[in-house]
Amino acid sequence: KRNDIGSTASCYAKAYLGETSLGGKAMRAFPADMLTVNGYLGTDGIKPFVEQILAHDKSIFALVKTSNPSSGELQNLKLENGEYVYERMGALVEEWGKDTVGKYGFSEVGAVVGATHPEEAENLRGKLKNTFFLIPGYGAQGGNAQMLKVCFDKRGLGGVVNNSRGIICAYKKPEYAGKKYFEAAREACVAMQRDLSATIGKMS
Amino acid sequence: KRNDIGSTASCYAKAYLGETSLGGKAMRAFPADMLTVNGYLGTDGIKPFVEQILAHDKSIFALVKTSNPSSGELQNLKLENGEYVYERMGALVEEWGKDTVGKYGFSEVGAVVGATHPEEAENLRGKLKNTFFLIPGYGAQGGNAQMLKVCFDKRGLGGVVNNSRGIICAYKKPEYAGKKYFEAAREACVAMQRDLSATIGKMS
Repeated sequence: KRNDIGSTASCYAKAYLGETSLGGKAMRAFPADMLTVNGYLGTDGIKPFVEQILAHDKSIFALVKTSNPSSGELQNLKLENGEYVYERMGALVEEWGKDTVGKYGFSEVGAVVGATHPEEAENLRGKLKNTFFLIPGYGAQGGNAQMLKVCFDKRGLGGVVNNSRGIICAYKKPEYAGKKYFEAAREACVAMQRDLSATIGKMS
Repeated sequence: KRNDIGSTASCYAKAYLGETSLGGKAMRAFPADMLTVNGYLGTDGIKPFVEQILAHDKSIFALVKTSNPSSGELQNLKLENGEYVYERMGALVEEWGKDTVGKYGFSEVGAVVGATHPEEAENLRGKLKNTFFLIPGYGAQGGNAQMLKVCFDKRGLGGVVNNSRGIICAYKKPEYAGKKYFEAAREACVAMQRDLSATIGKMS
């Protein structure tokens, strides 16, 4: 989760998504396809990333409604116009991505929308028609397929579900006791895939 | 400018401000004294840093009102209770630091308050009695001593002024033409010190 003001954001954007000049040679410093960014600084902190997205066919996800317990302290404050802070951030994300919408109708500037806050997720899915969601909070943080299905549109599209600790640390769970690390991780992946496709696959 | 949810924030906090276990040995990964963090995620993303502050005598600065041109897009939105988003973030910072106030009355959880937004800076200085400011925006971004003097209290205390490009890139400026890089940097430092002490030194 990176960000800074314009000039430094530009260097971050080039380092992660684009190319950096090193000894006169264009090099890819950290060749990533996607990066999570924080939009608290506003448009001039995000624009440099959008430039690299357009130049190098990359994507970013901006924090909108995060999965952690106290995310509402700032994100769920109500503005004088009746909007919530997270809704405003979502609207900025939709705006930042508008020149990068692809054939499925989603832009390259996505939103982080936690599986642990289904009400806000449903609200955002209804408003941000062109924004793809990165959905953390599944597994270790308590999110499940029922909770996060609201992040997907009627076609069953619109999001990717992230699960880190639930897979990496599966071998520590009682239900995988005695299994090797990689066996437990594989089984946790398969279980997650079944859970998600049974729920989201049913949408039409 | 770092942050993430609780568990990852905790690892960031240990890596930059505390100690990390490597091969069973406690190591300082990036031995920094201070770190800039982003509070958009709320208290559980900041608490791990405060724990390391208390354990290792370190400090952080949280983004409150940043120096970049479009910082107001989110930070200057008005809430339904009449507060601005940046004021609320400032109040959270004051709260996060309350157990770390030292003998001069300032806590170890500071606020980033740009020199380029004097009105907001004055407002924040009046409200956040125990919060020390990190003040970017001096020099290359257009801030000057007159603009940022409102960041200091009646004693002339309460902030540290950051100047990166104005010093590092001084040798590129017409007034330092023909000077070596380090000579230009030194002279730019002296000029900045004179400018600040002439203005802030006059407070009583």
